[in-house]
Amino acid sequence: MAKKWVYDFEEGNKDMRELLGGKGANLCEMTNIGLPVPKGFTITTEACTQYYEDGCEINDEIKAEIAEHVAKLEASTGKKFGDKTNPLLVSVRSGARASMPGMMDTILNLGINLDVVDTLAEKSGNPRWAWDCYRRFIQMFSDVVMGVSKSEFEKLIDKKKNEKGVKSDVELTTEDLKELADEFKEMYKGAIGKDFPDDPKEQLDEAIKAVFRSWDNPRANVYRRDNDIPYSWGTAVNVVEMVFGNMGDDSGSGVAFSRDPATGENKFYAEILMNAQGEDVVSGARTPMKIEEIQKTLPEIYKQLLEISDKLEDHYRDMQDMEFTIEHGKLYMLQCRNGKRTAKAALKIACDLVKEGKIDEKTALLQVDPRNLDTLLHGSFSKDTVKAATQIGKGLPAAPGAASGKIVFTAEEAKAAAANGEKVVLVRLETSPEDIEGMKAAQGILTARGGMTSHAAVVARGMGACCVAGCSDITFSEDGSSFTLGGHTYKEGDVISFDGSTGNIYDGALTVQEGAIEDEDFATMMKWADKYKTMAVRTNADTPTDAAKARELGAEGIGLCRTEHMFFQGNRIDAFREMIVSDTKEEREAALDKILPLQQGDFEQLFTAMEGDPVTIRFLDPPLHEFVPKTEEDIEKLAKTKGKTVDEIKGIIAGLKEANPMMGHRGCRLPITYPEIAVMQTKAVIRAALNVQKAHPEWTIVPELEVPLVGIDKEMEFVKDIIVETADAELKAAGSNMQYKVGTMIEIPRAALTAGDIAKKAAFFCFGTNDLTQMTFGFSRDDAGKFLGSYYDEKILENDPFAKLDTVGVGKLMKMAVEDGRAANPDLHIGICGEHGGDPSSVEFCNSIGLDYVSCSPFRVPIARLAAAQAAIKQAQ
Amino acid sequence: MAKKWVYDFEEGNKDMRELLGGKGANLCEMTNIGLPVPKGFTITTEACTQYYEDGCEINDEIKAEIAEHVAKLEASTGKKFGDKTNPLLVSVRSGARASMPGMMDTILNLGINLDVVDTLAEKSGNPRWAWDCYRRFIQMFSDVVMGVSKSEFEKLIDKKKNEKGVKSDVELTTEDLKELADEFKEMYKGAIGKDFPDDPKEQLDEAIKAVFRSWDNPRANVYRRDNDIPYSWGTAVNVVEMVFGNMGDDSGSGVAFSRDPATGENKFYAEILMNAQGEDVVSGARTPMKIEEIQKTLPEIYKQLLEISDKLEDHYRDMQDMEFTIEHGKLYMLQCRNGKRTAKAALKIACDLVKEGKIDEKTALLQVDPRNLDTLLHGSFSKDTVKAATQIGKGLPAAPGAASGKIVFTAEEAKAAAANGEKVVLVRLETSPEDIEGMKAAQGILTARGGMTSHAAVVARGMGACCVAGCSDITFSEDGSSFTLGGHTYKEGDVISFDGSTGNIYDGALTVQEGAIEDEDFATMMKWADKYKTMAVRTNADTPTDAAKARELGAEGIGLCRTEHMFFQGNRIDAFREMIVSDTKEEREAALDKILPLQQGDFEQLFTAMEGDPVTIRFLDPPLHEFVPKTEEDIEKLAKTKGKTVDEIKGIIAGLKEANPMMGHRGCRLPITYPEIAVMQTKAVIRAALNVQKAHPEWTIVPELEVPLVGIDKEMEFVKDIIVETADAELKAAGSNMQYKVGTMIEIPRAALTAGDIAKKAAFFCFGTNDLTQMTFGFSRDDAGKFLGSYYDEKILENDPFAKLDTVGVGKLMKMAVEDGRAANPDLHIGICGEHGGDPSSVEFCNSIGLDYVSCSPFRVPIARLAAAQAAIKQAQ
Repeated sequence: MAKKWVYDFEEGNKDMRELLGGKGANLCEMTNIGLPVPKGFTITTEACTQYYEDGCEINDEIKAEIAEHVAKLEASTGKKFGDKTNPLLVSVRSGARASMPGMMDTILNLGINLDVVDTLAEKSGNPRWAWDCYRRFIQMFSDVVMGVSKSEFEKLIDKKKNEKGVKSDVELTTEDLKELADEFKEMYKGAIGKDFPDDPKEQLDEAIKAVFRSWDNPRANVYRRDNDIPYSWGTAVNVVEMVFGNMGDDSGSGVAFSRDPATGENKFYAEILMNAQGEDVVSGARTPMKIEEIQKTLPEIYKQLLEISDKLEDHYRDMQDMEFTIEHGKLYMLQCRNGKRTAKAALKIACDLVKEGKIDEKTALLQVDPRNLDTLLHGSFSKDTVKAATQIGKGLPAAPGAASGKIVFTAEEAKAAAANGEKVVLVRLETSPEDIEGMKAAQGILTARGGMTSHAAVVARGMGACCVAGCSDITFSEDGSSFTLGGHTYKEGDVISFDGSTGNIYDGALTVQEGAIEDEDFATMMKWADKYKTMAVRTNADTPTDAAKARELGAEGIGLCRTEHMFFQGNRIDAFREMIVSDTKEEREAALDKILPLQQGDFEQLFTAMEGDPVTIRFLDPPLHEFVPKTEEDIEKLAKTKGKTVDEIKGIIAGLKEANPMMGHRGCRLPITYPEIAVMQTKAVIRAALNVQKAHPEWTIVPELEVPLVGIDKEMEFVKDIIVETADAELKAAGSNMQYKVGTMIEIPRAALTAGDIAKKAAFFCFGTNDLTQMTFGFSRDDAGKFLGSYYDEKILENDPFAKLDTVGVGKLMKMAVEDGRAANPDLHIGICGEHGGDPSSVEFCNSIGLDYVSCSPFRVPIARLAAAQAAIKQAQ
Repeated sequence: MAKKWVYDFEEGNKDMRELLGGKGANLCEMTNIGLPVPKGFTITTEACTQYYEDGCEINDEIKAEIAEHVAKLEASTGKKFGDKTNPLLVSVRSGARASMPGMMDTILNLGINLDVVDTLAEKSGNPRWAWDCYRRFIQMFSDVVMGVSKSEFEKLIDKKKNEKGVKSDVELTTEDLKELADEFKEMYKGAIGKDFPDDPKEQLDEAIKAVFRSWDNPRANVYRRDNDIPYSWGTAVNVVEMVFGNMGDDSGSGVAFSRDPATGENKFYAEILMNAQGEDVVSGARTPMKIEEIQKTLPEIYKQLLEISDKLEDHYRDMQDMEFTIEHGKLYMLQCRNGKRTAKAALKIACDLVKEGKIDEKTALLQVDPRNLDTLLHGSFSKDTVKAATQIGKGLPAAPGAASGKIVFTAEEAKAAAANGEKVVLVRLETSPEDIEGMKAAQGILTARGGMTSHAAVVARGMGACCVAGCSDITFSEDGSSFTLGGHTYKEGDVISFDGSTGNIYDGALTVQEGAIEDEDFATMMKWADKYKTMAVRTNADTPTDAAKARELGAEGIGLCRTEHMFFQGNRIDAFREMIVSDTKEEREAALDKILPLQQGDFEQLFTAMEGDPVTIRFLDPPLHEFVPKTEEDIEKLAKTKGKTVDEIKGIIAGLKEANPMMGHRGCRLPITYPEIAVMQTKAVIRAALNVQKAHPEWTIVPELEVPLVGIDKEMEFVKDIIVETADAELKAAGSNMQYKVGTMIEIPRAALTAGDIAKKAAFFCFGTNDLTQMTFGFSRDDAGKFLGSYYDEKILENDPFAKLDTVGVGKLMKMAVEDGRAANPDLHIGICGEHGGDPSSVEFCNSIGLDYVSCSPFRVPIARLAAAQAAIKQAQ
């Protein structure tokens, strides 16, 4: 069947958002429910996609359909393009499936030319208005359609004002505007090399193409990436009969909200600019007034607006954001949509709508964007402070929050400064486990290297600290005592600020607003989320502090405890280093004996924090060389302890170096060469569990021991045998019949491919999607930053696969693993503990393939709970 | 149905090799065709597997069945275990599905004890023989079953000979042997702590367990890995009535071959040792005589042996290796099997059997082990020289051949020495592209690091040079002027030898026999191979020399030309380095312009060498930092050329460093960031093809341009667009309508997972199984050596997945990619160009999933041709 490319507003409705875009669908809906909407039609998003497929041309079929609808519009309005007695003017507006405010282009007053301007002047009796419309159109068309910079025209206006000795635009006379229009057209010709088009149909054709084109402009691309909007959607184009808010004091343009978008208060909120077009409201050149001020001058309009606001909110069952124009005392609605709002407002509105009986709990849950909760859980910069600030760069939004403080370059300095009560930010090339205490002490962490799953990012998210990672524009000086960014040079003590939710970096200090989760609506929403979600939400927590925080935020267990993250606390690393450089199994066991009680203590605290809920402890994972001493001092210390020479220690360290450590001697490969490591860790887990179980007989503790990096079923079998033998001996010695589970991470492609074999030996699977993404793509997460930029530019990738799960490739492996795993072992319990466990769209995918739980960093637990609820509700629908 | 664990020789036949092992199946077969075989039975390989499953115990069911068959044997022989009048003695022999000569254990004379020995002495009238049997049994049982070292017993024998003043064993009297038997049993008791077992049933039980256990001994494990025999097969156990070759001058034991195993000549060949048991022949303590010598003393036996040899060869239709014993002038056959033979003999025998009308061509093809061809294509050490040599270590058999020469440590020294006519071997920690000329000059390359797909291994195989890689026991001195291995220290100029087919390293010089492929039988066999194989065999060749060699060896095209391998020739690297450190696209293009004519010239030679057959040229693949200058001198040179400071160049080089370069900025990621690289390479390929096509209008050249490391369909689309645009412009400018193909490597797991999408944009797929194995397992091939040893020890892996394709995991991805790729693009042409393309078992897998071609290094082409033919024949069967 032939596609229909163009819809009159009478032909569509609000459910056709995919085809007509949000704006188009809602213009149709408003038309159908009898609201005052100018006449017009929508060119579909499919036409946009077709335009790109046709090499950026509008094909004849679509052109013909547009022409048909122009004729219909002319008939229904009784106006005609270019007509000398009753000319038709239209606006041409973009409108994608999802709202992308300000990202794409709009052209007003299209259809105007020298003939039409005269007619307008005559018919309206307002020649100044007519000529103002004309010069605005030339300016907008030149800028949007032909790429002649707006500022060039502004310069001409300024020149004119100087010549005439006036200060504001409104003081320019009709004659001035006529002259300006001529000058504008001359500049257009100079820049483009041909005359400004007079034919309205040519204007329309160019304008539609410009809107299509604007779908692909850089700021739209960035916005889409930040907001999970696929490039493939395309934008619709709305062609709407012009109504004029700039026809005098009984005219105006404005914006209205059915409730307060900042606080969520149930109170109509609107602003209006009299005698102005919509672009004047948006540009901020003049300050609009509160809508209440027209109660006296235009009481009917005010009343009508209120009624419409209520009607639309009831109709859409959500807070509405509306654009309107008043032309000679008559109200026209130009747009309505579910309004953007702060996280606080989102929660309040959703809860209030339930209380008011307008929506049910499930709808309320679906109304809140889980990602917005970040601002509730972390600090953020106030809007005003951001407006006034100078942005000097942008990195990856690695861990949300807002940081502002003096620059320090080392973890030691951060600790020292924090001890003195100073607010500092830690700026590093990259971070390593040794930096953890400094990272805690700082307001935030900024790194030049590393992606969304780099050490800095993962650790910062874990501790709820703000982090901007991988800002590759930062260039450090050779001695590391300063860096340049955005043309400035920064030394220790200089102040910068950055936003971990956007990645933006600013010069100087910005005001930070603290986050607050002591919100009744937040609690209500989380209660509802837990009621409807079907997946459990656990947390990735390595320390008792993290675990306690996660528990407070609703974690139902620990899905991932990275045992090695505790090794840098105090002087624990010493014993671990002794283990690494040991020559014999006996030496290794002696060193491991020192670590055992420390690990056991940590695990006891984790079991206690989780109050009998599941705790998964992953066995030692990273390559050993990550732990070796780096300073001469530390090397000497180790040499002395081990009775070796410094050269011998250096030799051992050099021997541990690997070409590709991510695929090297790590994970389960460690206990296969050194089984004693798994023996020690098993003892630590089981003894800890036994102690906590004894102290809390009211809980039922079932520790989960997790083998990392399995790719071969026999690896699992081998390590499991060690664990079971050790654990059973411990339990027997304690006279306990405590249950425990042995499972594995699924993070190697081969593990997913052979999940059926592995599942026979595992009680649970947990997808380690960081590594799985890395191996499936062959992207080193530490190095991919070098080329991912080009990938976004060329639209080879639209999202960072380390932040948003690649459901096509990695997801296929996960689906296979779930199906084959469950087929082989119906009792298999399956979760995810990669960074994706806290990403809403990834959580939805996990729900769709039937995972039992997701696990994420503590501060993402509420996001995951809400996302899991939304996923369950959507899937049931 | 209950399993049958034991079979009498009357119950089995030659086709039951899987269940009864090779020896058991053939003992059954010989029994059934009426040859003189002692009575006995076989315990199945399944019983062995069950033994391991039961925790190294023989379960009651199996025990009962053995007892039943012992009773049957007693009945049929009229002898009884431990009987004082007619005692039964048996041998207990291992026998796996595949022949593993000398790898597992055998016990003779079982059933003997003090009572029995007296009976035997009396009945035979030969007490010395009886006591010799007894002492032999004690010795063998103690060694094989209980692990008391044989040499301890030999010491006692030597002591006895000294006491008695005699020189050889045969001079010891009956009385001496009695004393020895007592001393042996005393020593047994001292070592084991209990009396030597007298009960034949206890002896049998222990002996069977010992044979099962010997399946898992270290030398058997190594042999299996070297010979592709799965651990899961297990061994059968044969219990055979003893016949005695040591009963006097009318008795003897020997080995016979139906044709000469060294030359293949169609001539009966056998050796016999009179008055001896089989173990004496094998041990080599006495020198056997040619069988022809018994023509006079035992003419009937001689005749009978000849008849049996003919009968067995006709029956099995292959050269037979037979063991026999003559007891008091009566012949017994103890074993027959298809004989091991040299490669030369294998070819001759197979061709002769066809000529003689005994087998058809397909059977002949299946008779030759493709891996054996290596010795024909490369040099090898003579058997005698190896016997006399001192082995000092073992590395990976990375590239076949034999090397012997003076040690040099640098490529420069290798070149210089070779120029002086000296034979040298290059010993390195690892090699890099800069070493290539030195590698060519050396007799062989030995490296301390790196696996089967390391640079040294890949390059050596390509040039047909001998290479032993990854000998981790080598320790270099700090200044690199010497290394230690096997307790010796070697300096420059010292002589060592090594075998690239086994990985063995020897002290001093060994005699090298040159390989020779000018063999008529080889040519015949290759002709037949080409006739029956269905996959094409291409070669991986980077240089015109490699290409010419491969063509000579039968390559039907180039499946992989690694363009970057030519960059280190002459001073080409200079221009490439200029490209790498360029700041702008223009600078890069200027440097690339210098490289273009050089690449074009190389490609012209490749197209010419292949005479119109397909040539696949892979675009630049490795990370750029592999090419950066390493010496101060080179850095200064580059700085000067580029007008930069040395520090700036060092800064750029540091910036190119990656944490995990295998998953870094390489492959198609390079042209996505720097499209001009793909533009240059496309021009070079198309221009070269045009020139060669012009010079040879009789050929039809269709160049194949290959994009490496694709994991996302849009990567392919992006690079393909560049290639097509560039190529079409070149062809248009030349007025040519030459066809060309654009395809991709499948070497990233995600490429296999999304093969359907990628196939829509690709004319061909080529599996890069080196990288695919790396990412699928998460094994860095440069680092995996550190833990693969433990993996073999623990039987987590039985083979190096970089040498033998992992059909379970990697193979699953390949199968998916073939199916999804062909479904999306039925014209898709699919091959493999990883190192697995030359491995016979991997070739068989490739055939089974329907690949169109395999591509391997030049010297593996004949192996791949034969393997492809075998695969096709087997699949058709």
